[in-house]
Amino acid sequence: MTAIGQSLPRKEDPRLLRGAGRFGDDLQRPGQLHARIVRAPQAHGVLRSVDVSMAVAAPGVVRVLTAADLPDDPRIPVRLTVQGIELTEHLQPVLARETVRYVGEPVAVVLAEDPYLAEDAAELVALDIDQLPVAMDADAGTVAAEFELGFGDTDAAFAEAEHVVELDFDVGRHSAVPLEPRTLLVEPDRATGALEVFGMTKVPVFNRGVLASMLDIDEARIRVHAMDAGGGFGVRGEFYPEDFLVAWLALHTGRPVKWTEDRAEHLVAVNHSRQQQHRISAAFAADGRLLGLRADVAHDNGAYCRTHGIIVPELTLAMLPGPYRVPAYRGRIAVVLTNKTPCGTYRAPGRFEGTVVREQLLDMAADQLGVDPVQLRRRNLLEPAELPHTRPMSTLGTDVVLDAADYPGLLDAAVAEAKRLGYYAQVEQSRAAGKRVGLGVAMFLEKSGLGPQETADVSVGTSGAVRVHSGGTSLGQGIETVLGQITADGLGVSAADVTVINGDTALQPFGAGSWASRSTVVGGGAVHEAALAVRERAIEVAARILEVAVADLTLHDGVVEVRGAPGQRVSLAEVARACQPGSAWLYAGEPAGLAARRRFEVAHMTYPYGAHLAVVELDEQTGGVRVLRYLVAYEVGRAINPELVRGQLIGGVAQGVGGALSEEFGYDESGQPQAVTFMDYLMPTAAEIPEVDVLVTENAPSADNPLGAKGAGEGGLTAAGAALANAVRNALGEAGSVARLPMTPARVRAMLAGEAG
Amino acid sequence: MTAIGQSLPRKEDPRLLRGAGRFGDDLQRPGQLHARIVRAPQAHGVLRSVDVSMAVAAPGVVRVLTAADLPDDPRIPVRLTVQGIELTEHLQPVLARETVRYVGEPVAVVLAEDPYLAEDAAELVALDIDQLPVAMDADAGTVAAEFELGFGDTDAAFAEAEHVVELDFDVGRHSAVPLEPRTLLVEPDRATGALEVFGMTKVPVFNRGVLASMLDIDEARIRVHAMDAGGGFGVRGEFYPEDFLVAWLALHTGRPVKWTEDRAEHLVAVNHSRQQQHRISAAFAADGRLLGLRADVAHDNGAYCRTHGIIVPELTLAMLPGPYRVPAYRGRIAVVLTNKTPCGTYRAPGRFEGTVVREQLLDMAADQLGVDPVQLRRRNLLEPAELPHTRPMSTLGTDVVLDAADYPGLLDAAVAEAKRLGYYAQVEQSRAAGKRVGLGVAMFLEKSGLGPQETADVSVGTSGAVRVHSGGTSLGQGIETVLGQITADGLGVSAADVTVINGDTALQPFGAGSWASRSTVVGGGAVHEAALAVRERAIEVAARILEVAVADLTLHDGVVEVRGAPGQRVSLAEVARACQPGSAWLYAGEPAGLAARRRFEVAHMTYPYGAHLAVVELDEQTGGVRVLRYLVAYEVGRAINPELVRGQLIGGVAQGVGGALSEEFGYDESGQPQAVTFMDYLMPTAAEIPEVDVLVTENAPSADNPLGAKGAGEGGLTAAGAALANAVRNALGEAGSVARLPMTPARVRAMLAGEAG
Repeated sequence: MTAIGQSLPRKEDPRLLRGAGRFGDDLQRPGQLHARIVRAPQAHGVLRSVDVSMAVAAPGVVRVLTAADLPDDPRIPVRLTVQGIELTEHLQPVLARETVRYVGEPVAVVLAEDPYLAEDAAELVALDIDQLPVAMDADAGTVAAEFELGFGDTDAAFAEAEHVVELDFDVGRHSAVPLEPRTLLVEPDRATGALEVFGMTKVPVFNRGVLASMLDIDEARIRVHAMDAGGGFGVRGEFYPEDFLVAWLALHTGRPVKWTEDRAEHLVAVNHSRQQQHRISAAFAADGRLLGLRADVAHDNGAYCRTHGIIVPELTLAMLPGPYRVPAYRGRIAVVLTNKTPCGTYRAPGRFEGTVVREQLLDMAADQLGVDPVQLRRRNLLEPAELPHTRPMSTLGTDVVLDAADYPGLLDAAVAEAKRLGYYAQVEQSRAAGKRVGLGVAMFLEKSGLGPQETADVSVGTSGAVRVHSGGTSLGQGIETVLGQITADGLGVSAADVTVINGDTALQPFGAGSWASRSTVVGGGAVHEAALAVRERAIEVAARILEVAVADLTLHDGVVEVRGAPGQRVSLAEVARACQPGSAWLYAGEPAGLAARRRFEVAHMTYPYGAHLAVVELDEQTGGVRVLRYLVAYEVGRAINPELVRGQLIGGVAQGVGGALSEEFGYDESGQPQAVTFMDYLMPTAAEIPEVDVLVTENAPSADNPLGAKGAGEGGLTAAGAALANAVRNALGEAGSVARLPMTPARVRAMLAGEAG
Repeated sequence: MTAIGQSLPRKEDPRLLRGAGRFGDDLQRPGQLHARIVRAPQAHGVLRSVDVSMAVAAPGVVRVLTAADLPDDPRIPVRLTVQGIELTEHLQPVLARETVRYVGEPVAVVLAEDPYLAEDAAELVALDIDQLPVAMDADAGTVAAEFELGFGDTDAAFAEAEHVVELDFDVGRHSAVPLEPRTLLVEPDRATGALEVFGMTKVPVFNRGVLASMLDIDEARIRVHAMDAGGGFGVRGEFYPEDFLVAWLALHTGRPVKWTEDRAEHLVAVNHSRQQQHRISAAFAADGRLLGLRADVAHDNGAYCRTHGIIVPELTLAMLPGPYRVPAYRGRIAVVLTNKTPCGTYRAPGRFEGTVVREQLLDMAADQLGVDPVQLRRRNLLEPAELPHTRPMSTLGTDVVLDAADYPGLLDAAVAEAKRLGYYAQVEQSRAAGKRVGLGVAMFLEKSGLGPQETADVSVGTSGAVRVHSGGTSLGQGIETVLGQITADGLGVSAADVTVINGDTALQPFGAGSWASRSTVVGGGAVHEAALAVRERAIEVAARILEVAVADLTLHDGVVEVRGAPGQRVSLAEVARACQPGSAWLYAGEPAGLAARRRFEVAHMTYPYGAHLAVVELDEQTGGVRVLRYLVAYEVGRAINPELVRGQLIGGVAQGVGGALSEEFGYDESGQPQAVTFMDYLMPTAAEIPEVDVLVTENAPSADNPLGAKGAGEGGLTAAGAALANAVRNALGEAGSVARLPMTPARVRAMLAGEAG
């Protein structure tokens, strides 16, 4: 029985559930110093002076670092560049030099013998700032970049349209807020100037390269260890100013330096996301056929371009047409700098935003056209026969080629499942009982499996234990379990015999990291190929030992045996020992070890898809939205571990509920953030999260990877705003539209009162 | 200009001279526990009981481990086995169970929160021991193994001899006593059961395997980091009981465990060496031709067979004929267990012992035959035309094949150099002034470059920095410098751009370690081949970038350029970037990275050789021996770094002076060690060590490795006992012989008084 497709228990759980996980803050090094970042208290101003004299004299302070101590003006480069877009002047400096641009911007670092002394001394750093006018929304900001994507003749499409539907929709500023704030420990080797960096779970190899380049040392002198992390969701593990500052201080003091941010810092320092203003319009023929789509988007990027550059705006535009047949499309986006925390990706970046806007528009159109919203979608979804479908656009450096799918089938299945589960009946009954309930349906297209490559090493030890060094990192998604199953399947061993070690740049120097729902697809592809290569090698060496032809051998359950003669066998452990240097079984010059490294490359992404159905009830008194029922239907190509796919989807819904209903980074007119504690930044709790029904289908395996897998990391979130907005709109009655997320009680009350949402 | 052959400054020195080296005891881990070994206070007895009750209750004690806590009876396996010799019953247990067999044998381990509490509590462990009779010399001990080596018809040789010379000679018990006692830190990962082991500098990969097997876990879960070490000399870094005990405790407590031995422990716990009783006889023809040689040796191995098994006895016999033409040879050795600290190798194992005996015998024979001692040697040395010369014996698992050499040439050169430096004149003048001076000459044969293999990884980072992960370890011998030079030469870069990282089992899992003077020969061979492979690969990729044929390119000074068109060039850094995954210059499936791993295998050892000349003066009142002049002449094949060769030879002489004149582990008749501090174990100081003249020749490069190198690690010591004994004999006058090392003042006084030495 193959390990793939089984819901094996997570390899990660024993350590995490027993308190033996190792998070950044668990780590201590003797003699470590503690860093505290001094952050700008104003949103925009000229930094006249940074007076560190009192801080330097404070007890326990070892050093206070300001921009003046750094010879150049180090700025954090963009990880995901978009060709032809120049962002250099908007990159974030590691410390503000002449100007501060958002509340929370790093201005100085205090290094002290303990974290409390560091925090006390940080308050003694005196900043002299001449206030400048602030830009707090996209209309008032500076345009850093502006670009269009699209295809077809939208003018003609709109000219011939029978119906044109238009919508203005704002998505609010929110972000991932993982359970664990960031933490870093950098330990220098005084002898060699080498640095061991603990933290940075997401793209450790990339970050190692950035750090090496910014510190001007060879990357091999830096070893990054990704740690266990309390979730990533896109925001954690990118290269932030602190990643440079802590490493610089360790290198220059020769002592270990530790930094752990508190929640208030986290909420102003880590990437924000999502905030966009959309004007979208669609042209329909009389029969409901979608003829064209136009979108005009303003993306409020905060004060700087960080590592994601303008990839979220690009993804917004590239993914906005979704799974529909769109003959003509024109999307334009302005990336605007404002005096807020800079932005980056957050799980389903660009898709959460685009999907809510598009799907709300489709519900409005259904009303205008007088057709059922599901029918309108059904009519416009691409049919399986139309796939693969190339859209003449590219995003993340790859052409948009929608691969094997059955969008209508998935939608039908989702609706049928919701009916079977009583969603529709419940709505009717509740309405009959006088309750304000609504049902929303939203389709979405996801992307996953971003390349260009991932590398994996699979090796068998002399005890027969199998070890995998993959390029992904363990962010809670279960990558160790999934890659273990893939290895077990490819090699012919039990998944229990496989240990997956991720995120150590010394052990896997070519890792591309865990993001963009790529770990199973691309990371898994590499692991699969490496496991097959080890299998082949094991059989080759076993053939020497058993004195039979390679073709006569099979490998299963950790044993190579002669077909039809099961007594003639060697264990993988024996084969591994026969591969040790000095073994008589090795040929001269033949590489030792029972191991293989393989690189798996993909030209395109693979596009999973799905539908969300939500039933909500509005409280007319408070404006509160209660989510009564929730279904995610999702096509995953092939589920390596079905239970983990379910977990990913349910977790995504939880975050989606937050973004749709409550989470928002507010600012006052002077640029002071209004949500710097959990009293103001309203994360959903277990009370707000519904039971989630999940329907995972495996009807459209990807042809681009040997497993057929499509990523599962984001689809639980992608259409959550859309389904909930559609459900709320449905509950409100069919006039107008929801025009803004989050749908907070105050906004819902306003909508109930007939004001714009 | 090639880097090979230059006396470049040592790469190791900046860190070591600035106090930035990292020794085991420098390392601390939060929450670490400290181990203290409870050692047997008696030399032989039945261990009736080990009462830990008081120790367990002592302040700060976390655990007390005794043999009863270990389910089986773990014993440390032999690293260097000799076929056909079974030693299992004599292997050392990690903790004494029923019997104690030497003073210092581990009986229990106390684990406490600090090292002082651990030491206090260790004194509370009550041992009930029924004393047994002790065997304190080889005549009284148990024979663990007995074997013969030899060739030719010795009976016939002795029958036809004109002269037979016979000598009884004892070599005393001494050992390396490196500057730094052993230290270990083992850090467990509670999540995975993995262990990070810091220490064990010598054979980390082998030790990892032993530890994995004894703990019954996969070897990949153990990562050994060799640390800087205050010298190794063979004794340090072997697998000792403490290596198991500390790791076992870390694994079973889940906390880091540290152990650092004190000097008193070190002197009874670390391998002793050298102690042998020899009866040797030689048959000569009338013309001084050596016809045959017989040796009968008793090797006092102490209480157990440790990791070296019986390799020192084997080497004693195999190397005893030296560089001479010996038509018939028969050596017999008895390996005897006594109630002393067990033995292992110490720099020049077996050769120091055999050389002093053989060379003393030759001086005696010269007297008997009435010829000059140098002339007698000259007459019997193998001539270059007789080489390679196979002796039908094997040692260390390889056949004895003496490779290219010019023994007579070296001896002539050494004597000429000593004359040039005024040695002979000084002796004459001193004698004329009434002083008791003597000159001793000794020839020796060394072995080096033991295989069967070594593995090396060479890689180029994207900054152009070159990194080497070799299988050797850095014990003070300058391996990082030498391998850096070899890499620079092979690859075509400056040695300054090369960093050599040794002794990390995760980075180089196939390393065979640093011992047996193998690092330059076998390790260097692997590095050389890996560097050439990287060079070839760099040229291959550069050819794509430059769009020229591979044959048109050269690589030097870190740049690949077109021959005759020096403007057309790419740097190694650019080539390394072109080899990154995702690069357009890489073909599909082609391994990424600018790197190569190569294994270098050798079938035979290579045999360096040399001569020592010593001038001594005896103090007739005290019996003190003052070394006035000292010359080492040494054939190294090829000196990668001549200054390091000089350093090796001079350091060897220093240790040789100690072993020849003062160092000795004495025991009383009950088995109590008499030398457990430096008050009793007399290391030579700078006052006792002469200026050493060094003559390094490169006349006989080895044909078995691409560098032509012969090892240089031991030859400074090999003939030191021999030259000094011959010099003392010469000073005493030509009656009789020296019969024992060390030649302590008391023994010299006795010899001056006409008693046996």
